[in-house]
Amino acid sequence: MRFVRALNTCAFSLCRRVISKHFLHCSLLKPYIGAHQFSVSGTMAAVADEDSLRRALAQKQSSIDVQGGTVRQLKSSGAAKLDIEAAVQALNALKLEKASIESQLQVALAGAAGGGSSSASRDAFRQAVVNTLERRLFYIPSFKIYRGVAGLYDYGPPGCSVKSNVLSFWRQHFVLEENMLEVDCPCVTPEVVLKASGHVEKFTDLMVKDEKTGTCYRADHLLKDFCKEKLEKDFSLSAEKAAELKHILAVLDDLSAEQLGAKIKEYGITAPDTKNPLSDPYPFNLMFQTSIGPSGVSPGYMRPETAQGIFVNFRDLYYYNGNKLPFAAAQIGQAFRNEISPRQGLLRVREFTLAEIEHFVDPQDKSHPKFSDVAKLEFLMFPRDDQVSGQCAKKLQLGEAVSRGTVNNETLGYFIGRVYLFLTRLGIDKDRMRFRQHLANEMAHYAADCWDAEIESSYGWIECVGIADRSAYDLRAHSEKSSVALVAQEKFSEPREVEKLVITPIKKELGLAFKGNQKMVTEALEAMEEKVAMEMKADLESKGEVEFHVCTLGKNVSIKKNMVSISKEIKKEHQRVFTPSVIEPSFGIGRIIYCLYEHSFYTRPSKAGDEQLNVFSFPPLVAPIKCTVFPLVQNQKYEEVAKLLSKSLTAAGISHKIDITGTSIGKRYARTDELGVPFAITVDSTSSVTVRERDSKDQVRVDVEKVASVVREVTDGLSSWADVLKMYPLHSSETAEE
Amino acid sequence: MRFVRALNTCAFSLCRRVISKHFLHCSLLKPYIGAHQFSVSGTMAAVADEDSLRRALAQKQSSIDVQGGTVRQLKSSGAAKLDIEAAVQALNALKLEKASIESQLQVALAGAAGGGSSSASRDAFRQAVVNTLERRLFYIPSFKIYRGVAGLYDYGPPGCSVKSNVLSFWRQHFVLEENMLEVDCPCVTPEVVLKASGHVEKFTDLMVKDEKTGTCYRADHLLKDFCKEKLEKDFSLSAEKAAELKHILAVLDDLSAEQLGAKIKEYGITAPDTKNPLSDPYPFNLMFQTSIGPSGVSPGYMRPETAQGIFVNFRDLYYYNGNKLPFAAAQIGQAFRNEISPRQGLLRVREFTLAEIEHFVDPQDKSHPKFSDVAKLEFLMFPRDDQVSGQCAKKLQLGEAVSRGTVNNETLGYFIGRVYLFLTRLGIDKDRMRFRQHLANEMAHYAADCWDAEIESSYGWIECVGIADRSAYDLRAHSEKSSVALVAQEKFSEPREVEKLVITPIKKELGLAFKGNQKMVTEALEAMEEKVAMEMKADLESKGEVEFHVCTLGKNVSIKKNMVSISKEIKKEHQRVFTPSVIEPSFGIGRIIYCLYEHSFYTRPSKAGDEQLNVFSFPPLVAPIKCTVFPLVQNQKYEEVAKLLSKSLTAAGISHKIDITGTSIGKRYARTDELGVPFAITVDSTSSVTVRERDSKDQVRVDVEKVASVVREVTDGLSSWADVLKMYPLHSSETAEE
Repeated sequence: MRFVRALNTCAFSLCRRVISKHFLHCSLLKPYIGAHQFSVSGTMAAVADEDSLRRALAQKQSSIDVQGGTVRQLKSSGAAKLDIEAAVQALNALKLEKASIESQLQVALAGAAGGGSSSASRDAFRQAVVNTLERRLFYIPSFKIYRGVAGLYDYGPPGCSVKSNVLSFWRQHFVLEENMLEVDCPCVTPEVVLKASGHVEKFTDLMVKDEKTGTCYRADHLLKDFCKEKLEKDFSLSAEKAAELKHILAVLDDLSAEQLGAKIKEYGITAPDTKNPLSDPYPFNLMFQTSIGPSGVSPGYMRPETAQGIFVNFRDLYYYNGNKLPFAAAQIGQAFRNEISPRQGLLRVREFTLAEIEHFVDPQDKSHPKFSDVAKLEFLMFPRDDQVSGQCAKKLQLGEAVSRGTVNNETLGYFIGRVYLFLTRLGIDKDRMRFRQHLANEMAHYAADCWDAEIESSYGWIECVGIADRSAYDLRAHSEKSSVALVAQEKFSEPREVEKLVITPIKKELGLAFKGNQKMVTEALEAMEEKVAMEMKADLESKGEVEFHVCTLGKNVSIKKNMVSISKEIKKEHQRVFTPSVIEPSFGIGRIIYCLYEHSFYTRPSKAGDEQLNVFSFPPLVAPIKCTVFPLVQNQKYEEVAKLLSKSLTAAGISHKIDITGTSIGKRYARTDELGVPFAITVDSTSSVTVRERDSKDQVRVDVEKVASVVREVTDGLSSWADVLKMYPLHSSETAEE
Repeated sequence: MRFVRALNTCAFSLCRRVISKHFLHCSLLKPYIGAHQFSVSGTMAAVADEDSLRRALAQKQSSIDVQGGTVRQLKSSGAAKLDIEAAVQALNALKLEKASIESQLQVALAGAAGGGSSSASRDAFRQAVVNTLERRLFYIPSFKIYRGVAGLYDYGPPGCSVKSNVLSFWRQHFVLEENMLEVDCPCVTPEVVLKASGHVEKFTDLMVKDEKTGTCYRADHLLKDFCKEKLEKDFSLSAEKAAELKHILAVLDDLSAEQLGAKIKEYGITAPDTKNPLSDPYPFNLMFQTSIGPSGVSPGYMRPETAQGIFVNFRDLYYYNGNKLPFAAAQIGQAFRNEISPRQGLLRVREFTLAEIEHFVDPQDKSHPKFSDVAKLEFLMFPRDDQVSGQCAKKLQLGEAVSRGTVNNETLGYFIGRVYLFLTRLGIDKDRMRFRQHLANEMAHYAADCWDAEIESSYGWIECVGIADRSAYDLRAHSEKSSVALVAQEKFSEPREVEKLVITPIKKELGLAFKGNQKMVTEALEAMEEKVAMEMKADLESKGEVEFHVCTLGKNVSIKKNMVSISKEIKKEHQRVFTPSVIEPSFGIGRIIYCLYEHSFYTRPSKAGDEQLNVFSFPPLVAPIKCTVFPLVQNQKYEEVAKLLSKSLTAAGISHKIDITGTSIGKRYARTDELGVPFAITVDSTSSVTVRERDSKDQVRVDVEKVASVVREVTDGLSSWADVLKMYPLHSSETAEE
């Protein structure tokens, strides 16, 4: 059985890694597919445009070369001055035309890579977001005072609060709503478990080493960087060469170590820092290894995903659920991947929080009783066929996608819908989010179907949630390795008659014929599948003897009619025993949060118009702090009211912050807008106060006693800001606001 | 600087480990102190009792020996039958008296070890609790289908839910209430950080190996087991020998490798499994080691505590708090300790959840503005002096304990009070909980004061929370190693005049006198403390020359008057720069939860009286499921009402479970009582239902529409069951109840 786990727990580009080495029929000659792997919302139109521009550029260059030759010839032959001038003018005109095509190409490339916005403006936007996040301690590079460790980040106070809000909502939206069985397993995992799952053998990236310094790089990253750089900056590239490089980018994840190594050699790629030659690529296991106990003989790993903890507990969980299917188990926890050279900031880290669901279901019935709750939802979907034919993601109705078979089954569809609701309620922009189906070569051979929730960010489309129907693979793998049957039973209300294949090797005859090899021949006969067995039965009856391949012996043997009896018998069965299928939505919490930061960030001019102010437009659900309390001026009476308000907010369970610095109200608003605090309470009297909403900057007057409950209702989602505006008088203040 | 971290983050017996090797003035000859280290609530009275019984036993034995001799002599000298009979009778009487003393000793030993209950009954109680916990999947030995790994446990569905409730409440009670800055740092930690904290060098246990099989044991455990076994089962032990063994138990944690090894040899202790000889004890580092990145040159560890992540971020957090003290940072997360041979089930594990607070405060002002909120609390405290003088823990008022100096300062006292409130609100029995002050030899030399919240369980008194004033130690250690100043500033409203020591070595003269050694002499002069420098100044003025020890040279040199100028100058200072003190409450969440299980568990007879039923009396706050919904009989109408109720409970955010099996209501109640579900709703009509409270078994009738809000109010703590009883009619049903 091939290793194909990871294909989707692996939201997180893991899939990119382990998958398709087994699918190398998609060779380097395969046509370009999957624009998603290269561009943000790049379309085939942009690609065609680029192609014709490159051809035009090459033509123009050759015209320039010809005209240049003409000019030189005229000059050397001492032609008339006017003739020479005319020829030079023509040459310059050609050069201008070339420059114009070059800038068109530049625009086309930026368009393909950035959904319209240029690469530079995306970088600038990202820098603005990241600067704000770091300055306000949403996150902190870990161990900063010791110069940090690549790929490790701390959540600072507001980031930690956002994370805890996202996780609470996840529990509410999935675990509580669906009555899931939540478990909490250790990160330290013994080798035997990760051998069964395949991670010990196959959870690898291909690595190259600087042959002189020993510095390590991811082989595919170097090749990818080379191709992208060439495509973006080398305008002399022929259309054919450009197509070749793009093809490499498209199939990058499918390349074997040998293929990668050959390309690196062919293109003369060297170590980025030193320009030294590179070693051949070889696999590096991405798990953090350790040793359990003091003896040094029990290897263990930090888990690369949380799912295995659920699979190994299937039997107990099934029992806990009253031996009934379907049911789902869930786990939130840390996972670890020892990346070779982490890049992309918060998106590719060495330790991260996963939230995973394993929904166990009878493979014969993948309907879902609550599917109708989500069937009417419409959102961007990107089915496999549309990717291959070069179309864009488009809005589909979920119910139709399931009924047409685009999505394999109702349960998978139900989770896609629930994930859509989860992400949009957090504040992810529904127009910059899509569900992309895995291509055939991305998907494990056992998987029934697999969709990634991808969110568009300045880094491109990012896999944030993987939703896969993994069939029975994981439970079977652990059943085999542990010898504990991880199965479910369906008791029949009355016994059913079933036709069963019965193979009875005749040991005496086999012993005479095969002596020491008897056992292996017997086992091979017993292991025959129905089709093979029935063919043998027919052959034995017609010919009396057949050739039979015994793989444990590595050779064919001759089986005679008297050595085995094969028949079909009718048996009564009282129950059906089967390995459940598992449908697995797997959430990369850190990635979702980072995309949420980008989707929530905007700037607006200050009142004086002299600077741009940053705002995070978090919904109250995820806002790190729900409201701030400011006394308008430094004044004991107002401060007392502020402290009173603080007490009532604490009692109502609302996280808040008092700011009694003497700074101007405008500056204080700006400070809290930058933290994404949705409401600000300004104490400007002892009986009533103003409440200001962050994005509209609307203010209302509310009695001191009522403020906490008003804020609580809005932050809990029981009422909206529009409701508040209807209930309380609008306040327009001269003293306040920026 | 000595290593002394761990002394209290180390709630969790870590302190037992690293501490007092530096305090070995408390040698083996030290008198017996600290009953806590040996017994559950063992008092000096019990100890005295045991002592006199052992002496009586020895006397009785020698009387028996004498009398036995007399009998033998009478027999061999052919004495009169009557005389022999009388002597034998006397002998038998002595033997009976001895047996009676033995059983008294047995009772005394059980009393000392078990707070009155016998060791057997404690084991039986624990077994009942643990059986229920495992059967109902509160926890599961991790990777069970692969025969598990010692010291690793999963939280199954109800356990996971209890844990998540405890952590939510912790956030509410500490983080939100105190406006703490919560952070979330990675578990993977580079070596440099744990070198600075001292863990790389000193976070060890002493280990011995079976010399033939290589099996590893904790050296102190083997010695402890030997002593306990002897004391409990060997009645021939002399009172002197018993005192010696008890003394070893008392100072066990202070023994050096050499001392432990000597005792193991002296007592002939061998490997428990094989009886093979043991190696000498040697230190084993308890951190799980790994390697960060692919190069293999960056060692890392899985963090043994979460505190370091906060310390290294001090500078950013201080800035985030507006450069103001005091403030507290908090972190919840996994910690890892590669125990040599984990015992005590859920109490000593290799991976666990810590919740730690680091409260940073000006060392010159440790008052707390909210101390008055907790000053009136009264609970069991066990100050150092009472432990040494052999008294019991007794009820003290917190305010008095602080004002009398028993507790070092208000901030420490405030946290002790808040921890008390936290634990009791979770459901910890206040009478089986105490705050024990660390003894002088348990405490780090820099620590100002340290108290453990200990909870009594079947294993004895368990440290569950450590609350320590660690002074400036941690921040100083990281300042030194990282060269980043982790300090706070107090800006003076107006500049202050300060007398400052100024030492100016005269380089020219020093150069002439010491040539190559000049630099070291200069540095040694500059490093002089005030007292030393002023003495030198006086000596130079009176004698013109002094002997001065330069430790970097390892010898004395002669310093003349013209080689250094020492003076005191008045300087103006605008601010004070200082390293804050840190007060650290550190919670072992898993230990608290286990103790909560024991404190919540009880049994009661079934209605038929034929069996004992298990109940967990969790308060609604921590109950894994808040209520269950049962249709009284299997009937479509009732099931529909049940489903409707389920929807409204979900909307109200109340975790619940529907049980529509046909089992009797009594059995269904028993099942949910065993999970600690506080309320059960039985649907026995379509308009109103009965709500039953778990412990009283009282039932009330509530309208279907009102049920969710009634249950929500009680589980949220907004009203009590008593309030519900007042509002709704009591229901007495013939059909229901066990």
